[in-house]
Amino acid sequence: MTPRVKEILSWYGSDNPGTLSNLARLLNHGRLGGTGKLVILPVDQGFEHGPARSFAPNPPAYDPRYHFELAIEAGCNAYAAPLGFLEAAARDYAGEIPLILKLNNSDSLSAEKDPTEAMTAGVADALRLGCAAIGFTIYPGSAHQFEMYQQIRLLGEEAKRHGLAVVIWSYPRGSALSKEGETAIDVVGYAAQIAAQLGAHIIKVKLPTAHLEQPEAKKVYEAKKIPIATQAERVRHIVQCAFDGRRIVIFSGGAAVFDEAKLMAEYRAIHEGGGFGSIIGRNSFQRARPDALKLLSDVMSIYEGK
Amino acid sequence: MTPRVKEILSWYGSDNPGTLSNLARLLNHGRLGGTGKLVILPVDQGFEHGPARSFAPNPPAYDPRYHFELAIEAGCNAYAAPLGFLEAAARDYAGEIPLILKLNNSDSLSAEKDPTEAMTAGVADALRLGCAAIGFTIYPGSAHQFEMYQQIRLLGEEAKRHGLAVVIWSYPRGSALSKEGETAIDVVGYAAQIAAQLGAHIIKVKLPTAHLEQPEAKKVYEAKKIPIATQAERVRHIVQCAFDGRRIVIFSGGAAVFDEAKLMAEYRAIHEGGGFGSIIGRNSFQRARPDALKLLSDVMSIYEGK
Amino acid sequence: MTPRVKEILSWYGSDNPGTLSNLARLLNHGRLGGTGKLVILPVDQGFEHGPARSFAPNPPAYDPRYHFELAIEAGCNAYAAPLGFLEAAARDYAGEIPLILKLNNSDSLSAEKDPTEAMTAGVADALRLGCAAIGFTIYPGSAHQFEMYQQIRLLGEEAKRHGLAVVIWSYPRGSALSKEGETAIDVVGYAAQIAAQLGAHIIKVKLPTAHLEQPEAKKVYEAKKIPIATQAERVRHIVQCAFDGRRIVIFSGGAAVFDEAKLMAEYRAIHEGGGFGSIIGRNSFQRARPDALKLLSDVMSIYEGK
Amino acid sequence: MTPRVKEILSWYGSDNPGTLSNLARLLNHGRLGGTGKLVILPVDQGFEHGPARSFAPNPPAYDPRYHFELAIEAGCNAYAAPLGFLEAAARDYAGEIPLILKLNNSDSLSAEKDPTEAMTAGVADALRLGCAAIGFTIYPGSAHQFEMYQQIRLLGEEAKRHGLAVVIWSYPRGSALSKEGETAIDVVGYAAQIAAQLGAHIIKVKLPTAHLEQPEAKKVYEAKKIPIATQAERVRHIVQCAFDGRRIVIFSGGAAVFDEAKLMAEYRAIHEGGGFGSIIGRNSFQRARPDALKLLSDVMSIYEGK
Amino acid sequence: MTPRVKEILSWYGSDNPGTLSNLARLLNHGRLGGTGKLVILPVDQGFEHGPARSFAPNPPAYDPRYHFELAIEAGCNAYAAPLGFLEAAARDYAGEIPLILKLNNSDSLSAEKDPTEAMTAGVADALRLGCAAIGFTIYPGSAHQFEMYQQIRLLGEEAKRHGLAVVIWSYPRGSALSKEGETAIDVVGYAAQIAAQLGAHIIKVKLPTAHLEQPEAKKVYEAKKIPIATQAERVRHIVQCAFDGRRIVIFSGGAAVFDEAKLMAEYRAIHEGGGFGSIIGRNSFQRARPDALKLLSDVMSIYEGK
Repeated sequence: MTPRVKEILSWYGSDNPGTLSNLARLLNHGRLGGTGKLVILPVDQGFEHGPARSFAPNPPAYDPRYHFELAIEAGCNAYAAPLGFLEAAARDYAGEIPLILKLNNSDSLSAEKDPTEAMTAGVADALRLGCAAIGFTIYPGSAHQFEMYQQIRLLGEEAKRHGLAVVIWSYPRGSALSKEGETAIDVVGYAAQIAAQLGAHIIKVKLPTAHLEQPEAKKVYEAKKIPIATQAERVRHIVQCAFDGRRIVIFSGGAAVFDEAKLMAEYRAIHEGGGFGSIIGRNSFQRARPDALKLLSDVMSIYEGK
Repeated sequence: MTPRVKEILSWYGSDNPGTLSNLARLLNHGRLGGTGKLVILPVDQGFEHGPARSFAPNPPAYDPRYHFELAIEAGCNAYAAPLGFLEAAARDYAGEIPLILKLNNSDSLSAEKDPTEAMTAGVADALRLGCAAIGFTIYPGSAHQFEMYQQIRLLGEEAKRHGLAVVIWSYPRGSALSKEGETAIDVVGYAAQIAAQLGAHIIKVKLPTAHLEQPEAKKVYEAKKIPIATQAERVRHIVQCAFDGRRIVIFSGGAAVFDEAKLMAEYRAIHEGGGFGSIIGRNSFQRARPDALKLLSDVMSIYEGK
Repeated sequence: MTPRVKEILSWYGSDNPGTLSNLARLLNHGRLGGTGKLVILPVDQGFEHGPARSFAPNPPAYDPRYHFELAIEAGCNAYAAPLGFLEAAARDYAGEIPLILKLNNSDSLSAEKDPTEAMTAGVADALRLGCAAIGFTIYPGSAHQFEMYQQIRLLGEEAKRHGLAVVIWSYPRGSALSKEGETAIDVVGYAAQIAAQLGAHIIKVKLPTAHLEQPEAKKVYEAKKIPIATQAERVRHIVQCAFDGRRIVIFSGGAAVFDEAKLMAEYRAIHEGGGFGSIIGRNSFQRARPDALKLLSDVMSIYEGK
Repeated sequence: MTPRVKEILSWYGSDNPGTLSNLARLLNHGRLGGTGKLVILPVDQGFEHGPARSFAPNPPAYDPRYHFELAIEAGCNAYAAPLGFLEAAARDYAGEIPLILKLNNSDSLSAEKDPTEAMTAGVADALRLGCAAIGFTIYPGSAHQFEMYQQIRLLGEEAKRHGLAVVIWSYPRGSALSKEGETAIDVVGYAAQIAAQLGAHIIKVKLPTAHLEQPEAKKVYEAKKIPIATQAERVRHIVQCAFDGRRIVIFSGGAAVFDEAKLMAEYRAIHEGGGFGSIIGRNSFQRARPDALKLLSDVMSIYEGK
Repeated sequence: MTPRVKEILSWYGSDNPGTLSNLARLLNHGRLGGTGKLVILPVDQGFEHGPARSFAPNPPAYDPRYHFELAIEAGCNAYAAPLGFLEAAARDYAGEIPLILKLNNSDSLSAEKDPTEAMTAGVADALRLGCAAIGFTIYPGSAHQFEMYQQIRLLGEEAKRHGLAVVIWSYPRGSALSKEGETAIDVVGYAAQIAAQLGAHIIKVKLPTAHLEQPEAKKVYEAKKIPIATQAERVRHIVQCAFDGRRIVIFSGGAAVFDEAKLMAEYRAIHEGGGFGSIIGRNSFQRARPDALKLLSDVMSIYEGK
């Protein structure tokens, strides 16, 4: 156990040894094990966008075993997916990589006006599949936000009681927000705070822009001259918004990016700003395996400070 | 246990021996037993369309014993029906054919704008009636879709815990889809994926057309030149969409078809495309018994590769 | 145990001995005991229409003991009522007549646009009051139909597990139906089928007219020339719609009828068409006791084939 | 145990000895103990109308102990109040007066279009506070009526199982009724019937007027010449509507009345018409203690037949 | 145990020794311990208003440990916060200060028309974190008020059963009230009464104005000449509205106030009017630590009667 991992675990003093052990599994697995940094492979796009949109760009990815192998070979800290994808291969790779069961999911066939997700698995499923953590999405700003908070409150209590860690995907969207506001610095910081207050051990947010969405917040950012001009500054601010750095915050980049230089600049900004790492989905499994391994290796090098 | 059945069972590594035994019962029963192919007789039309519309074309079918006998005599792998139809004869034919209890049903008296179904039985009923599996319908594209996903999540977890298999009827329909879109290749592939991600062991979809419904998906199908021109190609693509062939996908043809040649062409396309078989309702029980037996025999011959 | 009762019980092979015993109690009690025919006294009009409208025509009927005594003296097979009416005298007449506890009720003060009922008692109440069965109303065609199906699914499972029989009042009404459609032959047949598929042991429907409501059904009735011209033919068809005669179907006549000849013609048609009997409420308790006893005796004579 | 109390208890043959003991406590306590008549002090106006409107007219009434003492000193049969008021002094007066815990309450800050109440306490609370009964309000005629019926069904079953008595406040109001209809003789009689059918041991209704609200009921009242001209006749009819006098029906007068003669005439009419007593809130606690004691004494004298 | 604390505990005669012990912990802790007065530090603004708006004015407050230390150093009676903030440091300061877990929270991203909150923690969380009490917000006047009353009814029963105390934040707001009405004397008094009737041990309201919102209440205030001209008179009236002073009522001042003299005048009015103390959030943690300690010390001096 490295001093850094010990330090991180010390922030979670209210958790039982079971949950701490699973947090340690996530932090100690893979190439970044022990550094306090994480790179996680998430694959829920089959559910969220449909199989052809997700996997036709790299057809081996239709096979649920592909992602286990990619995550293992790349040395990721964990692999996150919905029920079916984990059920389909968890026995084949048992013990080879920590798993995160995504407990709610949406699809692009939904006609819902305000975004929400369906509960598609439970804590009992996570336990029987040998997972280290549950994953759950909330949409602050949606008309359904309070219902989602209440779902994760119940699931989080049950997960912690059973020794699992809790990962919250906190994605602002919905009728209370403009499109630009979904990644505004004040809104993403707020989303990180909400996830932390709801009891998340690990928080996943999108990389924020310098836009300020809420007038009351804008006043404070400007009066207090909070530095948000560079991506690294914004990452640093988000980490501060999550209990002054005492919660693990990781970042996703959104849609697949084809400008490699731009992509790497983002990872460097996360590292420089004190972010805890990345969750990299479409940018990895939608390219050919060697390319994906190369990308993940490059990212991990950045997080190793190389 | 044939090598093919062993191979299929190997895809379900997260299931307990009870569920695997019931999957094996379905795969090993009847004339196609051991081939990895299935022909299932489903009779829920009495509930869904009313008794006269369903059974007047072949009046012996009003009697719940008729369908047990038809399925047994034809050598089907299983018989699927709602609570009342199974309760009415399960003791009389106990052990003679694997049963699938359909847990939700709709009727054509409903004034619901968006399609949904009522829960009409539970896992405890399936167990007391000696069933091998539960059956459940979802309607991706309906305003009620998330509620349905959440119902099958709970029922599926309970069923698997008690050693039952899970069959999902995944029928896209509702206000998010055009009429043509209900059988579009992208939408049916998506429906197969959703059912697989929700944890289905066996997935039932309709035979798809070459129509592409979702603009985002259309782009990918065209850019990647996914072959969908022939029925066999489309079947092959749907099977790929269900975890690259590692989930059992069977097909229904919809309304009774009177053009025998056209019907047989469909079954041959399913076979040629790598589909796992068919679920044949109105095309069997709405004709006289000898005709139905003939039809089912012809279909099974196709699936035997004859 | 007469051969006919044994035969009827043989249709319920999925039920436990407790439920079969209670079905036998209903079939073997009273003047028609052993014939396979039933005449049941139901009194829920106090709840459904109000006390004065229900009982002022025959004021002794305000007293809950009156109905127990009427049913016992007339030799009915059973007495059905809501919670309060049964609680008020079940101890006084314990063991003298099988009871059916009506678990849901409506009232005419409701402003609901589409018809529904409130759950007013449960299976535990039926057990503590010594009932042989639970009774439950569904309204196929109402916007609330699926909720009602789901309630009876749960109650039915609980009742059967505890050895009670299940009686479903299946009354089509609501925004999906015309007024005339509520008693249309296709719709009443469909209502009988739905109740049977939901697991009812005994089904109560209204006497149907020759009207055909649903266009898709009309086509089949006409193409197949299903005989529905006479009341006896229509009764026969309804019985066929309930699992080809393998479920007990009884009939109600609706509002109090003052044309005695017309009323008796209805009972004769039920008998001639193979119906299993009648449920007679307002036509019995709203007349003076001797008149009611005379009427019930006349009806039973018809069912005795006299 | 007086013969009259024994007679009354004989009407509740389906209840367990625990519930009968609590009914007996209510009937045998205070100055009217043993007569079969009841005067109950209810104080929920602090919740329903606010503290100043309720208690400023007699400021000692702000103190929760005041009402216990008033009820004890006046010799009432019982004291009824919401959770907080009982919790605040139940230990101080334990065993000195039977208590009724009001389980639902509304307030005048609500913007609900149709009247309803919030559940504010449960059966477990009633038991831990040493209550003899639970109290519950229903609003027949409200769009929320069925939900309220379902709540009292569950609470009533739980209360009876635990040996408590059940008191239902049955107050017609809501969008299905005119203002005048809320106290119409047909509607109040119907409300008494509904409460009785829902399993109430004691029913509280408002004194009815001679108005007839429902056209179908009006026809019957007129055809059958039901006597409703005098207040005593109307009380007699309401008692008949509650199982022909076999359920305890007590009356409230509504707003505080300052015409003493008119008030006393109402109590005499209740007595003359065979009512079982009164529930007297604002007319007692909103006047100075000696005046309240005088009023309650005068009312009890009437119920003693003096 | 001082006589004053013994007296206060005597008002809670229906609670078990566990709950009384926790109430005593709150009353006996810190500088005001034993006086019967309380100053509580609440920090839910991170959730309710966002992290930057809440903590940028005093950046050390981003760290969850800051507030524990501030409350301990200032000698507050207790510290109240949402789940995440308590989880993040409860082990580090175990036993050093009584904790109140806030069980529901809102955020300013919500698009809800009428105010409500999400359940974000439960009684089991409060117990595992070593809390002395649960905290819960209700919004009398909101369309969601009844749902909130029902939530606290269930949580309060569970909390008391497990020996915890119950603190209700009673904040009138919503479509049934004008903006000015939210702090009107009649409405705040009503809010205090509702919280008391719902079973709160400690009630938190805002300092009221002399405005009268409800016409029916206005009449009584004017007719009875209830003194509400000064802040101290209004505090005295609110305390009377909470069971004549037999429930603990504490006050919040709302937004951060920069006129120190005005702020101190408010605390003096609370003391003079017989209020039990204050809950001071933004006025303390949004200033630099020494300033906050100074302010809290000054307030406590007032409550010590200095």
